[in-house]
Amino acid sequence: MYQKVNELIDPYLSKTGKNIVSLPTFFGRYQDIIHRSLCMAVKVNQSDQLQTILRYHLGEVDTRGNPIESSKGKALRPVICLLACQALGGVIDHALPVATALELIHNFSLIHDDIQDGDKERHGRPTVWWIWGRDKGLVSGNAMRILADTTLWEMINQGVGYSKSLLASQLLLESYIEMIDGQYLDMSFEDSLDIKLPDYILLISLKTGALIRCAMELGAFMASDDKTLQQAFRRSGELLGASFQIRDDYLGVWGDQSITGKSVGSDIFRKKKSFPVVYTFDEAKGKDKAVLDKIYSKQFLNDEDVETVLEIMEKVGAKEYSDKMAYSKCKEALNALPVTNISRQGWKEFKELGDFFVSRSY
Amino acid sequence: MYQKVNELIDPYLSKTGKNIVSLPTFFGRYQDIIHRSLCMAVKVNQSDQLQTILRYHLGEVDTRGNPIESSKGKALRPVICLLACQALGGVIDHALPVATALELIHNFSLIHDDIQDGDKERHGRPTVWWIWGRDKGLVSGNAMRILADTTLWEMINQGVGYSKSLLASQLLLESYIEMIDGQYLDMSFEDSLDIKLPDYILLISLKTGALIRCAMELGAFMASDDKTLQQAFRRSGELLGASFQIRDDYLGVWGDQSITGKSVGSDIFRKKKSFPVVYTFDEAKGKDKAVLDKIYSKQFLNDEDVETVLEIMEKVGAKEYSDKMAYSKCKEALNALPVTNISRQGWKEFKELGDFFVSRSY
Repeated sequence: MYQKVNELIDPYLSKTGKNIVSLPTFFGRYQDIIHRSLCMAVKVNQSDQLQTILRYHLGEVDTRGNPIESSKGKALRPVICLLACQALGGVIDHALPVATALELIHNFSLIHDDIQDGDKERHGRPTVWWIWGRDKGLVSGNAMRILADTTLWEMINQGVGYSKSLLASQLLLESYIEMIDGQYLDMSFEDSLDIKLPDYILLISLKTGALIRCAMELGAFMASDDKTLQQAFRRSGELLGASFQIRDDYLGVWGDQSITGKSVGSDIFRKKKSFPVVYTFDEAKGKDKAVLDKIYSKQFLNDEDVETVLEIMEKVGAKEYSDKMAYSKCKEALNALPVTNISRQGWKEFKELGDFFVSRSY
Repeated sequence: MYQKVNELIDPYLSKTGKNIVSLPTFFGRYQDIIHRSLCMAVKVNQSDQLQTILRYHLGEVDTRGNPIESSKGKALRPVICLLACQALGGVIDHALPVATALELIHNFSLIHDDIQDGDKERHGRPTVWWIWGRDKGLVSGNAMRILADTTLWEMINQGVGYSKSLLASQLLLESYIEMIDGQYLDMSFEDSLDIKLPDYILLISLKTGALIRCAMELGAFMASDDKTLQQAFRRSGELLGASFQIRDDYLGVWGDQSITGKSVGSDIFRKKKSFPVVYTFDEAKGKDKAVLDKIYSKQFLNDEDVETVLEIMEKVGAKEYSDKMAYSKCKEALNALPVTNISRQGWKEFKELGDFFVSRSY
């Protein structure tokens, strides 16, 4: 299967022939400065315990505020932002404040999501609300969110200039509002059995896509005043965001439990309207459709229900189609990039990013 | 009692000799433009249903989005901001964006507070989470919050200038972070029986004081570049904030149910660590102290407990002391204002504001 899809999106994705799961090495080049910047951001004016909660969530300290061996996240959004900036010959320090803001906004949404979903663990660590309670979790999320706003002054301190800094923070705000709209849409979808693929694509372009798109656009914006270039990165980011979420949805159904930390079919169990589910609802016919409708009308699913849904998914080819769509969006994303403006090294790394997006296991 | 306290703070507060409850008339001069501005703000990029929720909360529409006869709030913070600006001869349109932002931030915190406190009604209307559920309530609050950030561009559109607009939004951000810190501190206090008055004053200076202080400071900031003047309004705002919250706490215990919508002693029933409670814990001795400790160690209080606490409050003079402190902070607030820089009309209206603060019934 992978070989076939790799052929489809050749020449842009390297033909590794195997399922690449490790992060591209260029992530390492940016992660340290991003985490230093996040560290600085959470020190702004917060009370001690609130700071501990934020730093705990970011994987820097334990619940009592003692430094721990890194449990830090991938920092995907800021890494993409810095990569876009550097690939166009921009100054990393100019893009670092917005990159940091993107990670803070992303983490704010994780803290609130965990409360809403009642998730007690994230990447093997107890979640904030599970340790400190829902109320403190809620406020901590709000604190994380607002720290993103302090980055506007960081840009100005870095010499980005008032006008450009303001435009950058406007783009950030726009993507944040889209993300909120997406979260809202997601909740509305939960109550409906009749979600079509185009609805779903709109949803993910808002909920997940907005920040990834913004990461690409702001990286380019910090490196260049060329609007066409910025638009190309914006479009590419949109597609990368869709590809990322479809792969996420794929892993939520068929991911390796030992890597994702979730059991096979866990998103089915939660009745999440993810890409494979929406596709299967669209494609299933006759008796299968009736069975699906019946299962998704129940309040709680059991193992047998999950098994049945997996069988219907198998029948309609949901796994292959999800895989193919993640690949195809990623191919489009790379195609959208203005190759001639991007450094040779940058281009190589964007291809590594694409490889990672479509074949990651976590 | 009122007469006595009025003498104390004479000559700044008018000697009305009665309990003034109606809003000063100058509120009317500002409320319409504030509500128009709020109306504009919630139209930014939000999906239709999300917009309906925000407009419902602001009292503009019913749950289905149909316009209703006004159920709008006092708009206290923006009114204070515009009053400060106008009293110093500033341009209202310059202060309107930050005034609007203050009201949006305040309303964001109300939406989240209602979720945390499980309150099903606010000013006689069902709360957002009670109608649309906790998850949508949470996201709606976040949406309300972020709309405050759009006002930065409104300032620039109004010709405030980049540098001044940025400084204004930095002051807004500072006050918002303080508010969050205060909310967090408040939750920490809930678990403790040993809160002293100075701790409590710190708490309210953050939780409630920050936005009211910011309203005064930003009003002055928009009218004048004189730092001493801005500082005077900031200090005055701090004291007004404390006065406002102490009066709020007074009403939470001894307020008129038919006006506040809360039963007498409702804050005692909820074991809220409000000003009279903290004072009573400080002042009660011997058996009374032991009784208080026992009552506040219970998970739920009954009517008899509330009655007992009210009796101990009576004994230590908590009602008079709360009243006196609200007056005294308000007097200090008016004293802190630079009279010579303020228009005659403005000064008259600040005194009306003071009257309202210390004698309001809602």
